[in-house]
Amino acid sequence: MSLIVTKFGGSSVANVERVKHVAGIVAQLYDQKNKVVVVVSAQGDTTDELIEKALAYNPNPSKREMDMLLSTGEQQSAALLAMTLEGMGYPAISLTGYQAGFLTSSTHSMAKIRKVDTERVENELDSNNIVVVTGFQGMSRYDNITTLGRGGSDTSAVALAASLHADVCKIYTDVDGIYTADPRKVPGARKLAEISFDEMLELASLGAQVLHNRSVEMAKKYSVPLEVLSSLEDKPGTIVKDGIKMENMLIRGVTKDENVARFTLHGIPNQPGTAFRVFSALGRKKINIDIILQTPEVDGKQDITFTASAALKDDIMRVLTEDLADLNAQRVRCEENVAKVSVVGAGIETNPGVASTMFEALRDANINIKMISTSEIKLSVIIDQAMADKAVSAIHEAFFGN
Amino acid sequence: MSLIVTKFGGSSVANVERVKHVAGIVAQLYDQKNKVVVVVSAQGDTTDELIEKALAYNPNPSKREMDMLLSTGEQQSAALLAMTLEGMGYPAISLTGYQAGFLTSSTHSMAKIRKVDTERVENELDSNNIVVVTGFQGMSRYDNITTLGRGGSDTSAVALAASLHADVCKIYTDVDGIYTADPRKVPGARKLAEISFDEMLELASLGAQVLHNRSVEMAKKYSVPLEVLSSLEDKPGTIVKDGIKMENMLIRGVTKDENVARFTLHGIPNQPGTAFRVFSALGRKKINIDIILQTPEVDGKQDITFTASAALKDDIMRVLTEDLADLNAQRVRCEENVAKVSVVGAGIETNPGVASTMFEALRDANINIKMISTSEIKLSVIIDQAMADKAVSAIHEAFFGN
Repeated sequence: MSLIVTKFGGSSVANVERVKHVAGIVAQLYDQKNKVVVVVSAQGDTTDELIEKALAYNPNPSKREMDMLLSTGEQQSAALLAMTLEGMGYPAISLTGYQAGFLTSSTHSMAKIRKVDTERVENELDSNNIVVVTGFQGMSRYDNITTLGRGGSDTSAVALAASLHADVCKIYTDVDGIYTADPRKVPGARKLAEISFDEMLELASLGAQVLHNRSVEMAKKYSVPLEVLSSLEDKPGTIVKDGIKMENMLIRGVTKDENVARFTLHGIPNQPGTAFRVFSALGRKKINIDIILQTPEVDGKQDITFTASAALKDDIMRVLTEDLADLNAQRVRCEENVAKVSVVGAGIETNPGVASTMFEALRDANINIKMISTSEIKLSVIIDQAMADKAVSAIHEAFFGN
Repeated sequence: MSLIVTKFGGSSVANVERVKHVAGIVAQLYDQKNKVVVVVSAQGDTTDELIEKALAYNPNPSKREMDMLLSTGEQQSAALLAMTLEGMGYPAISLTGYQAGFLTSSTHSMAKIRKVDTERVENELDSNNIVVVTGFQGMSRYDNITTLGRGGSDTSAVALAASLHADVCKIYTDVDGIYTADPRKVPGARKLAEISFDEMLELASLGAQVLHNRSVEMAKKYSVPLEVLSSLEDKPGTIVKDGIKMENMLIRGVTKDENVARFTLHGIPNQPGTAFRVFSALGRKKINIDIILQTPEVDGKQDITFTASAALKDDIMRVLTEDLADLNAQRVRCEENVAKVSVVGAGIETNPGVASTMFEALRDANINIKMISTSEIKLSVIIDQAMADKAVSAIHEAFFGN
């Protein structure tokens, strides 16, 4: 008998048919003598619809009231799934974030889970109930309903699994696992049987948006084994855990991120501390910088180039042109037609051949590299956005064949 | 400065325009330096829609899960009203039944309010917030969400007003007060400026469904002055309170109730205790009897006739034909084509003229009286249902003119 925490996203519980299908999966786990907890998101586009509705009442609602409104989405889907299970003859009970013991910070709309008091959930499991818990939400110490932000339901599931010391946290989604590249774009993409938390983190932050990064970080911190699997097909997914063997695979996957922009301060008079001033000014505005490049000085002037999320373009340009006006840059530039393509894998650190294989694949495909960045388990290049898909395919073929 | 609890029903908050209108009413009370609590129902037909939705997932859902689902309706409308007030520049905060301290029994779908712990609401009022509270719901001592049953939002408002020792509980609705008869049917119907709790109880239980009876009973018990007024028009409504003066008005109103049926056990052999047996058998099935008539014995046989809610017809007929088969009635009969028409008013007890005025009006209108019942403040007759509207008009004209 295992204790299993499962999580189903919005599309998996979008309507009666999908909810009945999910109930079937949950019932099967229960029939196999497991203790089962189910964390659910709001149905389909409910959250977006509620946001749109709210804006008709107030174009700028407080986050506190928004949380009050949005949290009803998961409460409805949890109740409907519990009813469906009851209708199939299974003992089930739905619990709100508060009832399930999710104590969070007071940062409405992006609260952090402080603690999960599992007493109620454990009592219900001891009574042989299937426990259906609302994802994405909790209660602050001041008795206000909070939400955890987008992707919060994954985090809810992992936090509950960690607090319950569950044997596994199964994240059901509309893909059937983690692939070496986006299978919709790269025909030879392969599903991974296993991947480490660190590799998963790099893949997730690089645009393979299967699991929310917060949830992977939490799973890593508390050593909660994750399984990413399909809510549509009954087949094994990808296990995410620590200490997995390398399977002779140098890299785990190839990803691209098109939500990236490159910023350049051209012709800055060279003075000590210039780079520090640039990045501390950006840091004060909570802007995360990705890859940084500083050119050598020529005629007493130099360029500073960096990449960051394209969504932050306006904020970044304001810092560069206003806060940093006294740097006297000759020109400030933003390029949005770039993409970041990366290979991820624990084998990179010990295999210099990874870089040369990647660069060779790009050269053979006639793709120019604008910037390069490396970490222990990742190797990224900035290229023309128009070439991104071609680059992913070429690199994937070089490592995995076709 | 007064402490005012207001309540708005589902139609009053059905859409953006209505919610903004309600926010305007609330804002005006706040601008007049009152402390304001607003109890809201779910928007429009939300509750019915959620019930219908649930039945698609499980035709027979548990009441516990149904409460979990339905309670989201008020949570949404409360959040939307609070947002709307915020958008108008007013400090507002929405609270669920749990947050507002509604501790209820565990009888899901028809829970009773045990206690309202007003600490949170009082804190928010002390912070000068307009407090928007979900009607219809609370939390049981086992931390399960409960609902109070239909009309529960009125009860929520009165309970909160009683616990807060509010100066008045204003029930905003789609009629502008309590009338001497249904103004849609009787052209001369007049709005009452005041009415006593007892009179209101008789009117409510007789079919003038403006206020839920539970809420009037609670208001009477805790001496909470009520005002029934329109959410559409800005004019005084009807005050419901104790110890009002009589204003030379013998009766307060004329009502009809068509949800009534007449049952007769014909030709029962006369034995001691027959009536006791009939009504204790019905009482065991929790069936409330209204008017009872027992005919004098003829040839050792008698008839017992009574009226009750037509909705209970099947249950009642089962008791009469099965449980009471050994009474050996010659015939058991149910008539549904009857109606009860009543006059209500504290003046009835001391004015025998009321009965004769009523009977005279019915005779002049050629309406036959089947049964008669009286109480201290009410006088009811059972007549043909087809004559009910004509009877109400005739009686109303006799007392109030036209």
